[in-house]
Amino acid sequence: MRLTPRNTRFFDLFARAGEQVRDGTRVMTALVTAAPADRPALVARLEELEHAGDASVHAVMSALNTSFITPFDREDIALLASRLDDVLDELEEAAQLTVLYRVGALPEGVLRQAALLERAADLAAPAMTRLASLDGLTDYWVGANEVENEADAVYRTALAALFDTETDAIALLKVKEVLDHLEEAADAFERVANVVQGIAAKES
Amino acid sequence: MRLTPRNTRFFDLFARAGEQVRDGTRVMTALVTAAPADRPALVARLEELEHAGDASVHAVMSALNTSFITPFDREDIALLASRLDDVLDELEEAAQLTVLYRVGALPEGVLRQAALLERAADLAAPAMTRLASLDGLTDYWVGANEVENEADAVYRTALAALFDTETDAIALLKVKEVLDHLEEAADAFERVANVVQGIAAKES
Amino acid sequence: MRLTPRNTRFFDLFARAGEQVRDGTRVMTALVTAAPADRPALVARLEELEHAGDASVHAVMSALNTSFITPFDREDIALLASRLDDVLDELEEAAQLTVLYRVGALPEGVLRQAALLERAADLAAPAMTRLASLDGLTDYWVGANEVENEADAVYRTALAALFDTETDAIALLKVKEVLDHLEEAADAFERVANVVQGIAAKES
Repeated sequence: MRLTPRNTRFFDLFARAGEQVRDGTRVMTALVTAAPADRPALVARLEELEHAGDASVHAVMSALNTSFITPFDREDIALLASRLDDVLDELEEAAQLTVLYRVGALPEGVLRQAALLERAADLAAPAMTRLASLDGLTDYWVGANEVENEADAVYRTALAALFDTETDAIALLKVKEVLDHLEEAADAFERVANVVQGIAAKES
Repeated sequence: MRLTPRNTRFFDLFARAGEQVRDGTRVMTALVTAAPADRPALVARLEELEHAGDASVHAVMSALNTSFITPFDREDIALLASRLDDVLDELEEAAQLTVLYRVGALPEGVLRQAALLERAADLAAPAMTRLASLDGLTDYWVGANEVENEADAVYRTALAALFDTETDAIALLKVKEVLDHLEEAADAFERVANVVQGIAAKES
Repeated sequence: MRLTPRNTRFFDLFARAGEQVRDGTRVMTALVTAAPADRPALVARLEELEHAGDASVHAVMSALNTSFITPFDREDIALLASRLDDVLDELEEAAQLTVLYRVGALPEGVLRQAALLERAADLAAPAMTRLASLDGLTDYWVGANEVENEADAVYRTALAALFDTETDAIALLKVKEVLDHLEEAADAFERVANVVQGIAAKES
């Protein structure tokens, strides 16, 4: 049972989880532009990151169970860890499907989704390092909502283009499932921002 | 920081959110019977209602952060706001897809789903105005469960009919996604009733 | 309002819910190996179990509202009841779709999914009877995670085989939805184990 004034362990764990998520979006961009033959190695890299993400969640949960004092509400800490992990889960799922379904070249819309996920991660990762000071968290939340709105628009455009151009129903199903998981990843980033916003509101 | 005996702000916000949801089901019925060319204007109206719904959730969340005394458990208040919002999210999504996918005439089953969503809203909206008195909330919950069971049956019948009659897989996929979102809206109404039931059980 | 030292009611309810879930996995195995004409009777049996599962959740919720002392955190008790119920919901859904969609013979992968769900239930049901003593719950959690990883692999293999062999998009859609619900049932078993793990961590 540890009883330290600010319990910096949690801040360290969230900073690390933020970096893992950022790395995940980089691998996703590499994957959606790679030749199909190069995808399996990138999927393996995402699987590693996803396992590291699981380990971060478990570390947060055990820290919760052995900490008498926590910097925020226990539920918010558990929720933030689990929401960050959701991002990596969706990225891994999207990546695995490109290999499992032997998808050919991915359409332009998927590349634009991946680019927006990088932007979302570039907002989230530094925000995770500012949880201790609570600095700039409102800016993060506003920026995250803007990126999420843009991601929604990109997803819809990609979906409409897919249904307009793909006449093979099975090929359409495969690409649609990749688009759907990347859209889920964008939603997961928004939920991370909402948890942070809730924490900031309570602390202010 | 406000400290009023009953904190009527929350009751006002839920009454308003109940009306927004009811309006949403009316627009959905208009949309599923409208000619495809008239759908975009109705989608725009649903988007407005969905944004108003988001604003209601945010108003509830800030009221929670600035209220010392709340009429029910804080988690139940947050959950109720978010469950009501889920209904509008699903309605908006279903509506947008009819335009995005350029769906032609919608099958009979979709009209029956929309009619049941109106009935669910006609139970939910007045229940939101009775949260202060807790009057008739058990009747609401029983009625909501009946409507949900009927909605499930209508959804299954619509799904079976679609797979029996539609031989174009891509056309089938489009209509199935609309059916699925309307079924999600019915489930979201049931979850609203479950949160209210939980509140009533604790207070009684 | 009852105030008994250990409040054994909750333990009895969870033991019963564990058995209902185990029965559900048995019916599912019978269903996936049955001739299509024999499926409706097995679907009816799963619907009964699912209703019994709903009754168990309601019994837990009313016990929570009338108990002054509970053996674990109230939220964990409510969550565990609801997670157990999720398993039966997914089994029922998968079963109903085989009839609704008039699916023919199910592929080998579905049989392997059903066998793994039985194994998950054979770990979960006895764990529900050990909640009072907290004995062997870590072993349960480790075992449940192993089964879940195996279930993931089986699901992916089944999905790849389906996309490799089924050229009729509508037939593919039908079987894919059954596979998806059985995978959701496996995920639901994992979430049951995670709730139990959380309870055990707090109590130790």
